Order: sequence, then C-alpha cells, then structure tokens
Amino acid sequence: MNIIDEIKNIILERDEVKANELFEEYHPVDICLELEDYEDEEIGIFVKLLNKENLGLLLESAEEDLARIIMRFFTNEELIETFAFIENSIVADLLGFLSTVRRKEILSLIKSDKQNILKMILSFDEESAGSIMTTNFIALKEHLTADQAVKKIISISPKTEIIDKIFVTDYKHRLSGIVTMRDLLVCHADTLLRDLMEECDFYVYGTDDQEVAANLFSKYELDILPVVNNKMVVLGVITSDDIIAVIDQEHNEDMLQMHGVNADEEYDSSLMESFKSRIPWLVVNLITAFLASSVVKGFESTISQVVVLSAAMPIVTGMGGNAGSQTLSIIITSLARGELSLKEDFKLIFKEIFLGLTEGAIIGILAAGVFVFWHHNLYLGFILFLAMILNMIIACSMGFLIPLLLDRLKVDPAIASSIFLTTFTDVFGFFIFLGLATMFLPKLV
Amino acid sequence: MNIIDEIKNIILERDEVKANELFEEYHPVDICLELEDYEDEEIGIFVKLLNKENLGLLLESAEEDLARIIMRFFTNEELIETFAFIENSIVADLLGFLSTVRRKEILSLIKSDKQNILKMILSFDEESAGSIMTTNFIALKEHLTADQAVKKIISISPKTEIIDKIFVTDYKHRLSGIVTMRDLLVCHADTLLRDLMEECDFYVYGTDDQEVAANLFSKYELDILPVVNNKMVVLGVITSDDIIAVIDQEHNEDMLQMHGVNADEEYDSSLMESFKSRIPWLVVNLITAFLASSVVKGFESTISQVVVLSAAMPIVTGMGGNAGSQTLSIIITSLARGELSLKEDFKLIFKEIFLGLTEGAIIGILAAGVFVFWHHNLYLGFILFLAMILNMIIACSMGFLIPLLLDRLKVDPAIASSIFLTTFTDVFGFFIFLGLATMFLPKLV
Repeated sequence: MNIIDEIKNIILERDEVKANELFEEYHPVDICLELEDYEDEEIGIFVKLLNKENLGLLLESAEEDLARIIMRFFTNEELIETFAFIENSIVADLLGFLSTVRRKEILSLIKSDKQNILKMILSFDEESAGSIMTTNFIALKEHLTADQAVKKIISISPKTEIIDKIFVTDYKHRLSGIVTMRDLLVCHADTLLRDLMEECDFYVYGTDDQEVAANLFSKYELDILPVVNNKMVVLGVITSDDIIAVIDQEHNEDMLQMHGVNADEEYDSSLMESFKSRIPWLVVNLITAFLASSVVKGFESTISQVVVLSAAMPIVTGMGGNAGSQTLSIIITSLARGELSLKEDFKLIFKEIFLGLTEGAIIGILAAGVFVFWHHNLYLGFILFLAMILNMIIACSMGFLIPLLLDRLKVDPAIASSIFLTTFTDVFGFFIFLGLATMFLPKLV
Repeated sequence: MNIIDEIKNIILERDEVKANELFEEYHPVDICLELEDYEDEEIGIFVKLLNKENLGLLLESAEEDLARIIMRFFTNEELIETFAFIENSIVADLLGFLSTVRRKEILSLIKSDKQNILKMILSFDEESAGSIMTTNFIALKEHLTADQAVKKIISISPKTEIIDKIFVTDYKHRLSGIVTMRDLLVCHADTLLRDLMEECDFYVYGTDDQEVAANLFSKYELDILPVVNNKMVVLGVITSDDIIAVIDQEHNEDMLQMHGVNADEEYDSSLMESFKSRIPWLVVNLITAFLASSVVKGFESTISQVVVLSAAMPIVTGMGGNAGSQTLSIIITSLARGELSLKEDFKLIFKEIFLGLTEGAIIGILAAGVFVFWHHNLYLGFILFLAMILNMIIACSMGFLIPLLLDRLKVDPAIASSIFLTTFTDVFGFFIFLGLATMFLPKLV
C-alpha cells in the first residue's frame, strides 16, 4: 500500500496506531507533501491522531500554509507541549505564522528560559541570520581541560544538536575559538581548551542578512558558522544543512523574479495566486512595450514607403534583447555570489562594449546578407548591419550597468533589471534602425 | 598591509617564511582569488616557496585553471607528497586536470591502497555522486559495543573527516545503519551498535548524478548522505558542506543556460571566452528571428495598407514572450527540484491555458484601448485583443509543455526551452495578429 492510500485509510478509520506508525515508514517531509492535497477537516482528523512527538516532526517539515492549518486544531497548551520536540528556530517560525494575539498568549505560557530564546529569535528580521540559527549549541569556557570538556559535553549532548564542533568562550562569554570533538578525544586529557582551540575565522551578526551567511558558506565551504551579537557573544549557530534551504530559496527567488514572477509562486499555486503573481509584471511590461511601439509609430511614414523594414526591425530589437540578457544573467549570478561591485569592476564595461561590437558585427553581417539576398538592396543591408552593432553595444553595456546600478541603489537586480534592459534594447533598437532608414530613405525606396 | 601587497612583496623578495605565514592570516580561498590575477611565472615563484601542507591547502581551494598552472611547477614526486594533505575526492579532481600520461604516471607512483581509492573515484563521471564523495569516513561492524566503537573511532579519527556520524555495516560490509557520536557517548558502554543504530533512510549510488544527491539534501535537509555501490557497500559519503558547491553550480548553470550562456562563463572571463560562450546561441536565435521575420514579410501587402499594424505587432509578440517566460521560469525551477513530471502533472496545463486566457484578456483590453484611442478604429482594437488572448494561451501552455517535454527527452530544459518558446510566441504572434488583420482588412483601411 502506498502513502496516499495509507493516509486515506487512517483518516477514514481514525486509526491512531497506524497514524503514528506512518512516521516509522515515511519521512515527515513526504507525509507533509501528501497532506497538502487534503481538505482542512481531513488534515485535522489526521493530526489529532498523532502523539506530540510525531506532531512535532510533522510541524518541523510543514510549509507555512500547512503549518497554519495544523496549528488551528490544537490548544495553546497542546502546541507548547509539541514545541518541546521542535528546534527553537523552527518554533519561532511557527509562532510567526500565528496571529499576534495567539503568539503573545503562547509565549507568555512558555517557561522563561525558552521564552527568552524564542523572543530573541523572533526579534530578528525574517530573512536575517538570527532567524535561521540553531540555539542548541555547546559553548565552553577556555580554562576547562579536554577531559572536563568531554564530560560536560556528554552531560549536555542529549539536549543539543551539534556536538562535533564546540565553541570556546572567554570569561565575558565572548567567542574566542572552536574545538572539534575529534581534537578533544585524541589530545592529552589535561590540555586546556585555550591551547587546543582554533581561531574562528568567520562569523555573522544576528542582524546580518541570511544571504551574507549563505555566501560565506559557499565561498569558504564552511560546515558551521557562529552567529554573534555586537559584543561577540554567541547567540546561535548556522549549520550547512540549514543553509541549503536558504541557498535554494535565494536562487529560486532570483530565477523567478528575473522573469517577473513572485518568489513564492509554485508550479501548483492556485490559478488566482498565479494570476496575482504574474499580472503586475505584465502590465509594467505593457507600458514599456508601448514606449517602443510609439517609436515605431513615429516612423510610420518611413515604413509605409519601405514596408520590408517592418520585417527587419524585430530582428534588431530581438537580437539586442538576447545579447543583453546573456550579459545580464552573468552579472546577476556574480552579484548574487557577492563577487562583483560597480566600483572595482567598472572597467569590465569596456569588455562588454567590445563584445557588443563583435557580436553585432557577426550577427549584423549574417542578417544583412539575408536581407540583401531577399531585396537586392545593399543600403538595406548596411543599415541593418549598423543598427545591429549599435543596438548590441547598448544591450551588452546596459546588461552590465543596469544590475550593478540597481545593486548600488539597494534594489534587487534580479527583480528589475530585465524590464529596464528590454526597454533600452527595444526603444533604441527601433529608433536606431528606423532612424537610419529614414536618413537613407531615398536609397531604399 | 593588505593581501595584494603582501603577495607582491613575497614574490619580489622570494620570502619563504612570509609565504607560509600568509596561510595563518588569510583563508586559502582568498589567496587563490588573488593569485588568479598574477602571471604564470609569478605564481610559480610563489608556490615554490610553500611547504607541502600549505601547497595542499592552496590546491584544495584553487579553481581548475589555477590548479593546472600550479601543478606545472612541481615534479610527480612533489605532487604526490602534497596530495597526502588533500582529501581524496579533490586529489581525484586534480589528477583529472592533468594530461592522461601524467595522470597515469602519478597514479602508478601512489601507494596501492590510496591508488585504488583514487582509481575508484576517477572511474565515476565528472558530475556523478561518486566524483564528489569523501572517502574519509568511518564504518564499523554491527557487533561492536559502544565502548569498542569509541576506542576505535579515537584511534582512526586523526585520519578522517567526519566523526559525528558513523556508518554501521553487516558482515558483508553492507550499510545497515548510522550511529551518532552523541548516542555512542551517552549510551551504556555494552550496547551493541546493532541495537543503537538508526536505519539509513537515504543513500545514492556512486553512478547517480550529483543533482540527485543535491535534491535529496534540499528536500530532506540531510547533513550527510552515504554513497554506495550496487552491493550496498559504502564507498564514500557526501556532506552538506560538499553539496553546497554542487547546488550553487547547478543553480548557476540553470540561470546561465536559460539565457544562452555557457555554464562556465564568469563575469571576468576573457573577451574571447565570453565571445565563444555567447555567439552560438545568438546565431541560433537569429535563425528563429528570421522565421518570425518571414511571417511578417508574408503580410507585407497588409502592412503597406495599414501601417499602424507595424507598431502594434511587436506588442503582441513581446507580451507573449513575457507571459511565456513567467511560466517557463516556474516550471524550470520546479523541474530542477525534482517536483514535477509530465505524467503526473499534465492536467496543470489547463491552469496555464486559463491563465493565458485571463492574462491575455486583461493585457489585450488595455492594449486595444490605447490603439482605439490613437486610431479611432474599433476593429483594430478587437484584432489586437483577440490576438493577445490567443498568443498568451500559446505562450503559457508552451511555457509549460516545452520544458516538460525536453526533460522527458533527456534534454536539459534550462538550455533549450526559451529558444523554442520565443519561436512559438513570435511566429504565432505575428501570424495570428497579421492574419486577423488581413481577414478584417476592409474594416481597417
């Protein structure tokens, strides 16, 4: 029997035993993916059958919408009991999904040490390093010996997540280094942590953007990253398995936003959600399309005399758009990786100008060749060739400049770059080509 | 003094002590990023100053081009000495950068146990799970007690990477479960690993694509993933910090390929590299642009009678392209995450058709309104409205179908989808709009 049928049966028969056994057989992520397709009442029946530990596993893996539905079926007391099985940063996420009133009620009922941790996590912005960190880490004082440290770790370890890397702090609780479990086990029992620890090269502040943390993990292949406050006290730790979700999220956001889709649209979003996610961008695009269209309208008399121009002009604008978006995709991926800045890499614009020139020359000569062959008019070919070069220079240099400028202005380049780029390549493309045609009109008629 | 000046001085003064001290101050990744800007001979002077351990650190962090240059300055024996400090999967990568002759020479000189591991890693394809796995893992037999296990781990641990999770194998060396260091330390010393271990829910074969591994990490938030052969014997392990590089790589490849750029082009690639990376796609695009252009040419007589059509037609094709690429970006990100298949999700095409219809109706009515206002011809507005709806339906449904079909045909949808999509939206867009205009020509003139 597959997972779909099993869940169906469990709901039908309200079978408590089988509901909990399901977690031995399937990963909570897969159970969540199934539950998403059920009606709210059915989800309610299912989750009420679970013991608090399994309910915790389910809530840990649930996406926002599902988590909201699930939590609706439980009292504050039941939720608090369940939260005991869930890692604090995820409890904070879950609390964030609740109404302000209910969040405050629940927080006030949680015992004070956990309450303080949750309040601290909740105080950080949604996409900050502080909001994704784990607070279950081990920090030990510098003056402990390896032997004392191991004993302490063994006594703490059932309650914590990471025991492979242990933070070492000074008398003011400030981060001073890291020791690994391996070093603790193989060194002499009397060695002081102070002498055993390695310096901690990388850390982030709780208020830093999660992207800063993600870029550090990517660049330096870290496995953990401590999160500190401005007094260098460790607040939590980000692990490489936590950051993968962030990296995925940031990448997908870039990909979707670059094509004018809301970052939270999914392939199976409802029609209404998809519509709302996409229509604003289309309307903005329509406005820029009219800008380009009005350039064409301005040259109506030229076109009416040489109608073949109307067949050639979309080639100039289209190829400009293509060349520009090649540059754009490279600059945006590099920006996302934090590799590039307007100040340091400005001179690379000359490379892009030169690329536009050479690409334009090659594509221009090919396009011109075809039109000369069709129309036996060398001037038409020459105009097409020249317009292609000029538009590609604009395309490549704008594909370079626009995302860097937007980044400088603290606007996400993934969202806004391509609309500006197309406006440039369309408006200039039509203008250059039809303008040149108007200049050489006597030779074309 | 900053890192640039320090390296300059070291090279100038051939200062061995300072060269090696640099590794205490800076991360090897940063040293590599600097070295990339130097001439080959300067790099040679620098790397010859390093002890083998630091040279190993440098080679571990070096990109392919830099690694090739560095290795040129050392004899086979020197490289083998250096490889002792480098993790096997990276040694295998480095060997892969060398000529076949040199690779074979070096392999034959490496002692046989390490040689066999390297040959095994090298036997896997470049983007397979086997090529990125770490072979420094600990596997212990089921019948050991926790106490025996801890002693064994302590004796092995200086040579290995991961000691937090230990694989448990049966008498035939097959993977049977995983124990954590934490469980080993807190359990009773006599507990058998067999009774302590947890089942291993996820594993990959060495021959699986690295993307399969990456998707498992993303979906289930894994921290490690064992790599096995077809007899379930553990060959290696992939850790979450290793997989981050893969995830970054796959995402960036998708982003670049979707815009017609080679996956290995960087923002600072040479002009020639960039040109070679981009021109093939532009030529292919030019061909499809001519396809669209020839449709326009076919309607030259219509356009010559109603020139305003030439200003309206790019709006129809452009907006179709935009709507289609919205769908495309969602489908491609979902495909990359392994969430979608043609068979299971075919019915979602009806959502896309309906989206195209509603989006087309709204954008069509806006566009038509403007043209009716400009030209006082209701028929022109009606044609524009109808063409927009039809082209958007085609755009959305093709944006859905094309990547799924390509994926089914084992073609990377990120590479080829958008060229097919634009061809559809341009050719159909021009054809529908100008075709309708020709039908209603008497009403437009």
